[in-house]
Amino acid sequence: MPEALKLNEDRLFSSDPSQRAIARELYALVKDFPILSPHGHTDPQWFADNDSFGNATQLFLAPDHYIYRMLYSQGISMDDVGVGSKAGPSPADARTAWKIFAKNQHLFRGTPTSMWMGYVFDQIMGFEVKLSEETADFYFDRIGELLASDAYRPRALFERFNIELLATTESPTDSLEHHQKIKDSGWQGRVVTAYRPDPVIDAEHEDFKSKLKVFGELSGEDVYSWKGYLRAHRNRRDFFMTMGATSTDHGHPTAKTANLSPVDAEALFNRIIRGGFSLDDAELFRAQMLTEMARMSLDDGLTMQIHPGAFRNHNLKVFETYGRDKGCDIPLPTNYVNDLKPLLDAFGNEKDLTVILFTLDETSYARELAPLAGHYPILKLGPSWWFHDSPEGMTRFREQVTETAGFYNTVGFNDDTRAFLSIPARHDVARRIDANFLARLVAEHRLELDDAAETIKDLTYNLPKAAYKL
Amino acid sequence: MPEALKLNEDRLFSSDPSQRAIARELYALVKDFPILSPHGHTDPQWFADNDSFGNATQLFLAPDHYIYRMLYSQGISMDDVGVGSKAGPSPADARTAWKIFAKNQHLFRGTPTSMWMGYVFDQIMGFEVKLSEETADFYFDRIGELLASDAYRPRALFERFNIELLATTESPTDSLEHHQKIKDSGWQGRVVTAYRPDPVIDAEHEDFKSKLKVFGELSGEDVYSWKGYLRAHRNRRDFFMTMGATSTDHGHPTAKTANLSPVDAEALFNRIIRGGFSLDDAELFRAQMLTEMARMSLDDGLTMQIHPGAFRNHNLKVFETYGRDKGCDIPLPTNYVNDLKPLLDAFGNEKDLTVILFTLDETSYARELAPLAGHYPILKLGPSWWFHDSPEGMTRFREQVTETAGFYNTVGFNDDTRAFLSIPARHDVARRIDANFLARLVAEHRLELDDAAETIKDLTYNLPKAAYKL
Amino acid sequence: MPEALKLNEDRLFSSDPSQRAIARELYALVKDFPILSPHGHTDPQWFADNDSFGNATQLFLAPDHYIYRMLYSQGISMDDVGVGSKAGPSPADARTAWKIFAKNQHLFRGTPTSMWMGYVFDQIMGFEVKLSEETADFYFDRIGELLASDAYRPRALFERFNIELLATTESPTDSLEHHQKIKDSGWQGRVVTAYRPDPVIDAEHEDFKSKLKVFGELSGEDVYSWKGYLRAHRNRRDFFMTMGATSTDHGHPTAKTANLSPVDAEALFNRIIRGGFSLDDAELFRAQMLTEMARMSLDDGLTMQIHPGAFRNHNLKVFETYGRDKGCDIPLPTNYVNDLKPLLDAFGNEKDLTVILFTLDETSYARELAPLAGHYPILKLGPSWWFHDSPEGMTRFREQVTETAGFYNTVGFNDDTRAFLSIPARHDVARRIDANFLARLVAEHRLELDDAAETIKDLTYNLPKAAYKL
Repeated sequence: MPEALKLNEDRLFSSDPSQRAIARELYALVKDFPILSPHGHTDPQWFADNDSFGNATQLFLAPDHYIYRMLYSQGISMDDVGVGSKAGPSPADARTAWKIFAKNQHLFRGTPTSMWMGYVFDQIMGFEVKLSEETADFYFDRIGELLASDAYRPRALFERFNIELLATTESPTDSLEHHQKIKDSGWQGRVVTAYRPDPVIDAEHEDFKSKLKVFGELSGEDVYSWKGYLRAHRNRRDFFMTMGATSTDHGHPTAKTANLSPVDAEALFNRIIRGGFSLDDAELFRAQMLTEMARMSLDDGLTMQIHPGAFRNHNLKVFETYGRDKGCDIPLPTNYVNDLKPLLDAFGNEKDLTVILFTLDETSYARELAPLAGHYPILKLGPSWWFHDSPEGMTRFREQVTETAGFYNTVGFNDDTRAFLSIPARHDVARRIDANFLARLVAEHRLELDDAAETIKDLTYNLPKAAYKL
Repeated sequence: MPEALKLNEDRLFSSDPSQRAIARELYALVKDFPILSPHGHTDPQWFADNDSFGNATQLFLAPDHYIYRMLYSQGISMDDVGVGSKAGPSPADARTAWKIFAKNQHLFRGTPTSMWMGYVFDQIMGFEVKLSEETADFYFDRIGELLASDAYRPRALFERFNIELLATTESPTDSLEHHQKIKDSGWQGRVVTAYRPDPVIDAEHEDFKSKLKVFGELSGEDVYSWKGYLRAHRNRRDFFMTMGATSTDHGHPTAKTANLSPVDAEALFNRIIRGGFSLDDAELFRAQMLTEMARMSLDDGLTMQIHPGAFRNHNLKVFETYGRDKGCDIPLPTNYVNDLKPLLDAFGNEKDLTVILFTLDETSYARELAPLAGHYPILKLGPSWWFHDSPEGMTRFREQVTETAGFYNTVGFNDDTRAFLSIPARHDVARRIDANFLARLVAEHRLELDDAAETIKDLTYNLPKAAYKL
Repeated sequence: MPEALKLNEDRLFSSDPSQRAIARELYALVKDFPILSPHGHTDPQWFADNDSFGNATQLFLAPDHYIYRMLYSQGISMDDVGVGSKAGPSPADARTAWKIFAKNQHLFRGTPTSMWMGYVFDQIMGFEVKLSEETADFYFDRIGELLASDAYRPRALFERFNIELLATTESPTDSLEHHQKIKDSGWQGRVVTAYRPDPVIDAEHEDFKSKLKVFGELSGEDVYSWKGYLRAHRNRRDFFMTMGATSTDHGHPTAKTANLSPVDAEALFNRIIRGGFSLDDAELFRAQMLTEMARMSLDDGLTMQIHPGAFRNHNLKVFETYGRDKGCDIPLPTNYVNDLKPLLDAFGNEKDLTVILFTLDETSYARELAPLAGHYPILKLGPSWWFHDSPEGMTRFREQVTETAGFYNTVGFNDDTRAFLSIPARHDVARRIDANFLARLVAEHRLELDDAAETIKDLTYNLPKAAYKL
């Protein structure tokens, strides 16, 4: 007998009755708010072409590193669950791949993946039994049917999810053709881009040279001169703004910033362009470019996001065989206090600049990030990120940040996902955890209920709207 | 309609009924204990002169970096809320400044500042409505009236607060004239000093040279020779002891200690004195001086406090415009295990020396500080400090320290404040959090109620009394 | 009147009624499971000779660094509580030593030691009053009587404790004569060894040279040549496997690994053997040997354990007077991401290798260890260790690890103790904390009860059995 699937209305709320009652009340205030998704990695082509998402494996397994990294950790090959490699698409049969996932549900106990998938299966797809080895075929078939129907095409889901705005993330070398197509289509869904220049800033990136070439072509600037290179950024930022961009995003290995003299910056750039630069040069160039990006943001108003601290593609063999972004990124300790100082010395006291900081190193919450954001006018704290985008992670974020930075130096939730169907699930988790955290403060008489009510509305809607200038 | 202000009797206690009932019982045991304040930054002149504190802005805003850093983080200028700069006193109208604070109360939701201010307004000043934009004038006027009355002068409040002892913190270059005046006045309040030699130890301090000169004058020693410099410290420590000092305090960027040979120490000192020293020299000199201070403490019995790990005056422009200590200090990672070893190798096993360690880096609680204090006879752990002097911060301290160091290698609470009126509020928070933590242990059958009762009395009174030799 | 000693059936469970009820139910499922103790430091001679444990001081104080380090931190000499030094056995009278411990019970409030000792006194020794100064003599006498009885000899207790398997830890230079004697005795208790080669790998170890000599003699290999040295390890590993070993163990100062070319490895080995090596050489050699051990594990199937991050013998005077392992080891920050990469590049994707990682640096749980173990097939996470083998420590481990690594990349509990009588107490704490953690997930509707039930059985029995190949 398959087990029943039924989300509990009180999920993620404390089991203490007085706290739970308050959490329910607070959550009810924002449960039906529209979704603002100001940072994420969905594919704009979905909304441009509005094609079917295909089958369960294509939709849920192949693109979701949260899922296949866990399976991989238990010795299950990525080939077997539908993940493509440099050699081409996965040879796996989609149904067989799905069954592997189905029978390994126990691996996800206690993980956010299980919360998200439970929500998707119940709330979005209407399943009434749990996914298991026994129900794998039923799930696979039913998901296929649903995805083939108009109601499960990208635009229909976007509308059903009540998404007010969804930002994707593109490289300066992207033509933004999909965004153009969305614009031209007359569809009302707001899908905007964000400017993520890492491929033309990170000289260690394997495609740096080829990307730089495209960057020059698209911008019409001489990107091999320092001044032309900077102009090319301004040019592409402007173009991105015509496609709705209100923010930039920077995913660097560290939070290092630099503020070199123009002469030194140009000399560094020339070493980078000529090749034969040192690893320190590459790091210094990324550092300098964060400060350059801040300078441009002062002019064009784009909010900056800094996502530092991942050792990318840590697994050498997986990188060689499957390429980038295959669930092998591992967090590192990150020092914000020394690393951000050059940028802060230059622009930390500006009133018209917003820099949103993220971290994979939770030790920085109370020690560095909350003290920095609780002082510098330009700094705000992004929500708990990636490995920490989870009930415990979000709770630690609020517990460790609030006492020094308050709620109003934070910016609400980012789903930051490429798993489109999980977006409502993720926002639901965030709203529940915020409700539960605020409920604890109220239940412990540290905050009044009416203040908590105003706060949860701000966290859900007003703070992201303001920080990202939506 | 203004909202009612009413502190709940159960504030900060768990909402779980059985834990809450035990917390109430434990808190009741120590609620009315006298206050021991063995480390803080109040101004002895207040108690010497016993003048009125002035108006609400002068008392609450201008000196409180917890408050103006939060306002500043949201783009509110320090000039506008009464904070003086190098150019002179703030030009702001006190009432206008107060209104800015009043209408930004939401920024402090969930912060200890809101707990402290709520206590002060309710318990000390008798307000029955909350501070808001609407009540700002009423508050400003009423506070002015109260502060003009005899009952709100420093000495009267000191007595009303039931303070048994209050330690201030002075530099060796301070004449301690205010302490002398208090002593001569016949007033019975115990206001003692503590020896904080940073300005004559930190060669990077902008006033190092001028302070050194005064140090020589006050001590009558040749402070430009190593031996004379050390004698000057002994001389001033003796003098501070005549003004009640039982402790020294050291606020260094790191916890580094050194134990150089006499020859090397003298050579280092000579480099420092001559100028042209390196940053490493300055660091090494601070490190060496911690060990010298420990050596002196073995002779004169002063308890040592080490407060390491702040990047002072991180905001360059604020430092240049407003000077030191303007809410721009940011914590750094701190390594105690390697850094303290030279001092511990020299004196770690002494029975007549007490060194109290503080941290701004909570990662050291369970990893370094509890293991160190749970072994070395000279080491005790100070309470959660500064950014962590908060309900969550205090709870993390107990949760992460107790299992390895127990309660008896800790020293009770320090308010560490320059905000005199917040002292009872801060001690109340500490007593409540300790009661709540102990109540959890009792409710989970990890500790007997009678042992918890004895423990909370020790934490509130006996442990600080012993550690600081009061 | 002595106070009654009575363990509460609900100890360590949340006081929230709904969570507690679920925790009781889950705990009941595994309460009587046999004990698997795949890593620890009991003395095999106990089970070989089956002699009496002597008196209370010999059994409980002298060997337990958790106890005497806490007493020492309060100025109580190790000599006075029965700890032997380099000069010979402690001169203290055993009864007098016991009384010191008895009257200092308050130091252990809130520590795991108090939980363990309470269990031992109540469940194993049948005391009905608490240990105190008043009952110290009664305890000392009664413990002496019990230990003299057959029922309290090592083998009888082993059976009474329902231990299915107990692993000790020996150096390659150990003859394993006690394990041979156990084997020859016909006794059915499974006491196996584990291979801990630190003394012949750590060139900084004070006995490195003499141990190396024994290593050569026992293995019959030329341990002064790189190839002979490696063969000697393979030889001893084989021998250890005949004594039941299924694992190796490595207690290094850091998690550094290296994968040198054969030529470079040999050159490094030669520097180590010749003496005059640098500290970096010693570190690099330890790093290289972890990779060599992994290579051997691929062949012989031994599970690897890495226990990094302790600054051993931090207290210079205690080390000089009393020797190693006297409660003076202090944790350090540990970086797994960079340090393990060479080993992971070589063997991280193998399916037939298991490497169990431990940490003393809890900051690595969510940041490094869970992401690594949630991806690499060879990696599993050992339980919270040493200073963190405690209710709060175990809870933090589950809270910080589960969301990224799940439960199935962990390996259940290790008692890791030399305190034989505390083994049931420690496993009981672990089972209770796991039950309580799972109960919270169930009570918050993050996990179904039947899944929690299956999980706690796996954590208690199936996962350690699989990871250690028992």
